[in-house]
Amino acid sequence: MYKKLFIPGPTHVRDEILEAMATPMIGHRSKEYVALQAEVITKVQRLLYTEKRIFLSTSSSTGLMEGAVRNCVAKKCLNTVCGAFSKRWHQITLANGKPADKIEVPMGQAITAEMVDEALSSGEYDAITVVHNETSTGVLNPLYEIAEVVKKYPDVCLLVDAVSSMAGAKIEVDKLSIDVCLAGVQKCFALPPGLAVASVSQKALDRAAQVENRGYYFDFLVLQKYLDERGQTPATPAISQIFALNKQMDDILAGGLENRWQRHKEMAAFVQGWARQHFGLYSDEQYLSPTVTNIHNTRSISVADLNAELGKRGAMISNGYGSLKETCFRIAHMGDLTLADLEWLTGQIEDILGL
Amino acid sequence: MYKKLFIPGPTHVRDEILEAMATPMIGHRSKEYVALQAEVITKVQRLLYTEKRIFLSTSSSTGLMEGAVRNCVAKKCLNTVCGAFSKRWHQITLANGKPADKIEVPMGQAITAEMVDEALSSGEYDAITVVHNETSTGVLNPLYEIAEVVKKYPDVCLLVDAVSSMAGAKIEVDKLSIDVCLAGVQKCFALPPGLAVASVSQKALDRAAQVENRGYYFDFLVLQKYLDERGQTPATPAISQIFALNKQMDDILAGGLENRWQRHKEMAAFVQGWARQHFGLYSDEQYLSPTVTNIHNTRSISVADLNAELGKRGAMISNGYGSLKETCFRIAHMGDLTLADLEWLTGQIEDILGL
Repeated sequence: MYKKLFIPGPTHVRDEILEAMATPMIGHRSKEYVALQAEVITKVQRLLYTEKRIFLSTSSSTGLMEGAVRNCVAKKCLNTVCGAFSKRWHQITLANGKPADKIEVPMGQAITAEMVDEALSSGEYDAITVVHNETSTGVLNPLYEIAEVVKKYPDVCLLVDAVSSMAGAKIEVDKLSIDVCLAGVQKCFALPPGLAVASVSQKALDRAAQVENRGYYFDFLVLQKYLDERGQTPATPAISQIFALNKQMDDILAGGLENRWQRHKEMAAFVQGWARQHFGLYSDEQYLSPTVTNIHNTRSISVADLNAELGKRGAMISNGYGSLKETCFRIAHMGDLTLADLEWLTGQIEDILGL
Repeated sequence: MYKKLFIPGPTHVRDEILEAMATPMIGHRSKEYVALQAEVITKVQRLLYTEKRIFLSTSSSTGLMEGAVRNCVAKKCLNTVCGAFSKRWHQITLANGKPADKIEVPMGQAITAEMVDEALSSGEYDAITVVHNETSTGVLNPLYEIAEVVKKYPDVCLLVDAVSSMAGAKIEVDKLSIDVCLAGVQKCFALPPGLAVASVSQKALDRAAQVENRGYYFDFLVLQKYLDERGQTPATPAISQIFALNKQMDDILAGGLENRWQRHKEMAAFVQGWARQHFGLYSDEQYLSPTVTNIHNTRSISVADLNAELGKRGAMISNGYGSLKETCFRIAHMGDLTLADLEWLTGQIEDILGL
C-alpha cells in the first residue's frame, strides 16, 4: 500500500508529476532538450526572484553542497552549524581539503545575524555556508538578516542550502545577494529525487576561476560553459526529473508564488498548534520552520510504533533525527501537501494514541 | 511526436520501464527502500558475474569516473585514450589534482594489451583507466586481454568505464579482477538517465583508505559505510530510476544474459553489414562495438538533413562525435532495441537517401 509521505523528503508526489516522469525519452543533445532546459530555468528564476544563472545538477543536493565549497572557497570557509545537515556541510568542506571553521549552536536553536557578523569580522573567511531550513530540527534560520550582514563583507561568498525551503518559502536570491542557493527537487518541489538546482552568481563563478582542484562533475566553470554555449549540461542529465520539474513549475507559477508561501505558513501554523496542544515544540519558537515541525515527544510515546500504525493507515512521518530519535518526531508540511492532508494525519495520530 | 532513439544514450525506453519510473515515492530511509536496494544490487551482481559491492550513485557516469580516480589514484594514473570519453577521463583525472599520463591512439583505433603492458612496466602507475566501449568511435577495446596484462601489476587498480557496454556485452568483473567497473543506466540498461552503478573491489576501497581529499559525494568509503551498515546511500538516491532498474533487471535476467549478449552481437553485425554495403566503417574492423556503429560517411550525405528527415518519421540517429561530425554518423543498437528496429531504421534511411 502506498504511504503518503509526511517526511521531510522525499515528499508526496502527485499523480500528474509521476505521469510527467514517464514522458518518453529524448536525447540530451537535441533541440527538444535545449528548449526544455531553457524553459525550466526561466521558471526556476521566477521562483527565486533572480536573474542569475541556474545550474541543473544530476545529483542530490549533497553534491551541490560539495560543489559550492569546492568552487567558492579559496581561503577559508565559515560553516554555520545548527543540526545534522549544516554539520554535514562542515564535514564536506573539510573532506574537500578546504580550511574551515564552524560556529555551532545546539540542535533546536538558530544561527543569528550577530553570530555571523562577529565571526566574519575576523576577516579570515571568503565563504560562509548557511542552511536556511535545518531539516533535522525544523529550524528556519533568519536568512534575510544573515544575508544583510554578509553584504558588509564583499569578499565573502554566501552559500545557502535551501534544500528544504526552496519552493516552500520565499527566497529572493537577488535582493539577498546569495551567491549559491541550492536545493534538491524531492522536498518542497515535491518531485522524485535525483536532481538538484542552484542559482549561481557571477561572483561565485569569478571565485571559481581563482580556485584550483575544482574537479569536473561539480566544476561550476564547466557547468557554466555548457549552459552558456549550448543550453545543456556537461554530462547526461536526469531528463525525467527535468520533465517533471517543468510540469511542476507550471503548476507552481499558475497557483501563484505568494499563495504557495501562504499555504506553507498555514500548514506549519496548524501543525505547530496541534503539537503545542498534545506534545510540545522542540525548537526555538522564534525560528520555527514553515516546512517541517520537530515535535517534542513529551508523552514518551513510541515513535516507531506510532509510525508502524500510521503505515497501516497509509501515512508515514519521521522519527527525530540522530540523537533526537524518539525524543522527537517530525511532521513535514511541504510541497504539494495541503491543510486537509495535515488535518487527516493529525486526526489519525489522535485516534491511534487515544488523544 | 516521439522519436525512437537510435543514439548512443539516452536510448529508447520501453513503456513498461516508463511505468516503473512512475511508481509512487517511498522514503529512502524506509524498510521498503532497503529491500529495494538489496534486490537491485543482487541482480546487478549477476549481470556483472561478480560478488563485489555494487554502488548506486545518483549522478551520470561522469560522476563515478571522477569518483574512481579521486579514490583510487594515490601515486599516478595512466589514462588510455582512444576517443572523446576516454579523453574526458584524462581531463577529469587532472582536474582532481592527480598526476596522470595518457597513451593515446587516433579516433577509430583501439588500445591494445601490448600498449598497456609497456606503459605499466615503468612501475610509475598505481591506477589505469580503460574505456571498454568508446561511444564516440564505436570501438570496443579488448578488455579481456588488457585485464590479463593488468593482473601482472598487483598495485595497479583497473578502472573501467563500461558506460556503453555494461548490460550490452559480457563483462565478467571477478574473472577480470576489475577494481571499478562503472556505467550509467541510460545506455544498454535502457533506462532514463540519472543513475550510475559501479562494482567496486576491496582493493579499490583499501586504496581509498590511503588517499586524502576524496571529497564526500563520491567518497567510496562513505558509500561503503552506508551500504554495509544500512543498505542505503549517504544522500537521497534517484529512487524512480532504482524502481526502473529493478524492473529492467528482472526482465534482463528472465530473458537470459547469454541471449542478451547474442542479440547485441546480431544487431551489430546487421548494422555493420548494412554500413559496409552502403557506406563504410570508420573504426578498426578488429574492434567493432556490439552496441554502437560509427559509419563512415563515404557518400558525403548531409547527416544533419538525414537526421531531420528521420525525425519526421519518428527516429533519431547521432552525428559523428566532435571532429568526426558529418564525416561519420552513428547508429546505436543497444538496450531494448531489436533487429527488427534496426531493419526498419535502415529501411527508412535507404528510402530517404534513395539507396
